[in-house]
Amino acid sequence: MVITVDAVGGDHFPQSPVRGAVDAVNDTLDLTVVLAGPEKMINEELEGLDYDTSRIVVQNAPEIIKMKESPAHAVKTKKNSSIVKGIAMHKEGKCDAFVSAGNTGALLAASTFLLGKLEGVTRPTIAAVFPTKKGQRLMIDAGANLEVRTDMYYQFAQMGTIYEEEVMGVENPTVGLLNIGEEEEKGTEDLREAYQELSELSNFVGNIEGNDIFDAKSDVFLADGLVGNLLLKFGESVPDALRAFISKGIQKLHLDEDESELVRKIIRASLAEFNPDNVDGVPFLGVNGVSVVGHGSSSALAIKNMILSARKCVRQGINEKIVASLK
Amino acid sequence: MVITVDAVGGDHFPQSPVRGAVDAVNDTLDLTVVLAGPEKMINEELEGLDYDTSRIVVQNAPEIIKMKESPAHAVKTKKNSSIVKGIAMHKEGKCDAFVSAGNTGALLAASTFLLGKLEGVTRPTIAAVFPTKKGQRLMIDAGANLEVRTDMYYQFAQMGTIYEEEVMGVENPTVGLLNIGEEEEKGTEDLREAYQELSELSNFVGNIEGNDIFDAKSDVFLADGLVGNLLLKFGESVPDALRAFISKGIQKLHLDEDESELVRKIIRASLAEFNPDNVDGVPFLGVNGVSVVGHGSSSALAIKNMILSARKCVRQGINEKIVASLK
Repeated sequence: MVITVDAVGGDHFPQSPVRGAVDAVNDTLDLTVVLAGPEKMINEELEGLDYDTSRIVVQNAPEIIKMKESPAHAVKTKKNSSIVKGIAMHKEGKCDAFVSAGNTGALLAASTFLLGKLEGVTRPTIAAVFPTKKGQRLMIDAGANLEVRTDMYYQFAQMGTIYEEEVMGVENPTVGLLNIGEEEEKGTEDLREAYQELSELSNFVGNIEGNDIFDAKSDVFLADGLVGNLLLKFGESVPDALRAFISKGIQKLHLDEDESELVRKIIRASLAEFNPDNVDGVPFLGVNGVSVVGHGSSSALAIKNMILSARKCVRQGINEKIVASLK
Repeated sequence: MVITVDAVGGDHFPQSPVRGAVDAVNDTLDLTVVLAGPEKMINEELEGLDYDTSRIVVQNAPEIIKMKESPAHAVKTKKNSSIVKGIAMHKEGKCDAFVSAGNTGALLAASTFLLGKLEGVTRPTIAAVFPTKKGQRLMIDAGANLEVRTDMYYQFAQMGTIYEEEVMGVENPTVGLLNIGEEEEKGTEDLREAYQELSELSNFVGNIEGNDIFDAKSDVFLADGLVGNLLLKFGESVPDALRAFISKGIQKLHLDEDESELVRKIIRASLAEFNPDNVDGVPFLGVNGVSVVGHGSSSALAIKNMILSARKCVRQGINEKIVASLK
């Protein structure tokens, strides 16, 4: 299997993507990674690293799309960027998947324009992994579609179910619709309509509320991209807020050095699931290809995990399964 | 000052409201509390409590509106309920404020129908207190208005600013609009329009994101009722989720009894701001009166705090200030 990695995506390039790619190759037998980006920069980063040189290929892509750049414009004008070139290679069948921690908007635009949609899909979506008491679960949509038509919720539910089952290993995943109350008459007209459509799915458990997320009352959380994005980013800020609240608590109760250290160690261990290294990147669902997007702050370990997720998506044939389920 | 308290509101009636009322009277010199609810039930609860009997008055209101009852129907049919009777008394000038931990929808309906709107207000709103690193701040709207027109955001911003300044003691509060990104062109068409209107307010700091809430990047967080309600309930679930994550961490690191106890003690102390007892009830803003709604789980201490908040609203004349600011 061949996976192309954006060597200049994210906040820590080229180090994180290059090292993540090398680690992924060293940990597997069947994988070849193409590193796309400015050739010289990548080769310098590769220097001195220990790996099977036949399984790391450098693809020169001299232009860089920056994190804050306007997505549509960047994709249109920077044909020699790692993102546009990498996705074009995937389109041409030169690789089986593309992985990047770069500009999410540019990735989505390039993936949608170049790869196109899967048969039957109304709109591709960004799903994001959310830590819960039961382990990681999916929030869909996480910011790609701010306004979601009711038939789109239905497809998001199907795609999320397949991804959780095939790639995340969740058994018989259920789907819930985020709303202000459990009863089916709650919420806006759109949400009430979506509830009715979703009721046709055998794994739909109904409306779920904000306090049901950490309990994973359902395995897939459906929301429009505005709600999903706000909840996701609020959730990501929990560990940092907690450290601040705990520091105040430590002062208030006058803990000594050893006690404080113990408390901090426990917090670190307890919140490991919030650590971006352990939060998998998720492919754009509904796109005709496997294009995995990760957090800008991704470390080498996070990139390696994204590459392995992409490999699992290809192996499990999730796109074929999505097309079949939408029929 | 006279404040009427719903003696049969919330999950712990009549105990919490009756004891909260007694505590509020005992802690102040100027306050008379009217307890509205089934007379016999209230008198039984009052028995044996120590207080100035001239400053606790029982108002018989034999009907009870239950927590899950349909709001509009309950308000229409149960004229002798504590909620309808209490708010009617407030309307007639027999008391200065009404306080309840009961059915929020019924309270909002009764307050809006009976008290009416303040001059110039398009729609009353429910604000809710959110714990942040800087202390408590306001989320508006917390579920009353699922769809918010752009001019409503503007009024919510003004009302929230006045409430934070006058009642919560926040100096020069700023206002932010919850959105998926900082840039003014982000979000839905409604949010972009709201951004433009809000820009006329000198204390508007622009868009804020989900990860800006705990940091209190602004002091008032504006959102539609769907977003506000979901974030609020998700936030409320943080302490419980945390305890679950920490328990796992304690097991993982094999802590002994004493160490586990120390960690749990710190967590409790650190998350005190999340404790519903310490989260103030907030009046419906924009209603022509002071009608304070609290969490269903309110303890006696929470009810006492709500009574004191209501007293502060009356003393500071927040409604007069709201009317003046909207002109």
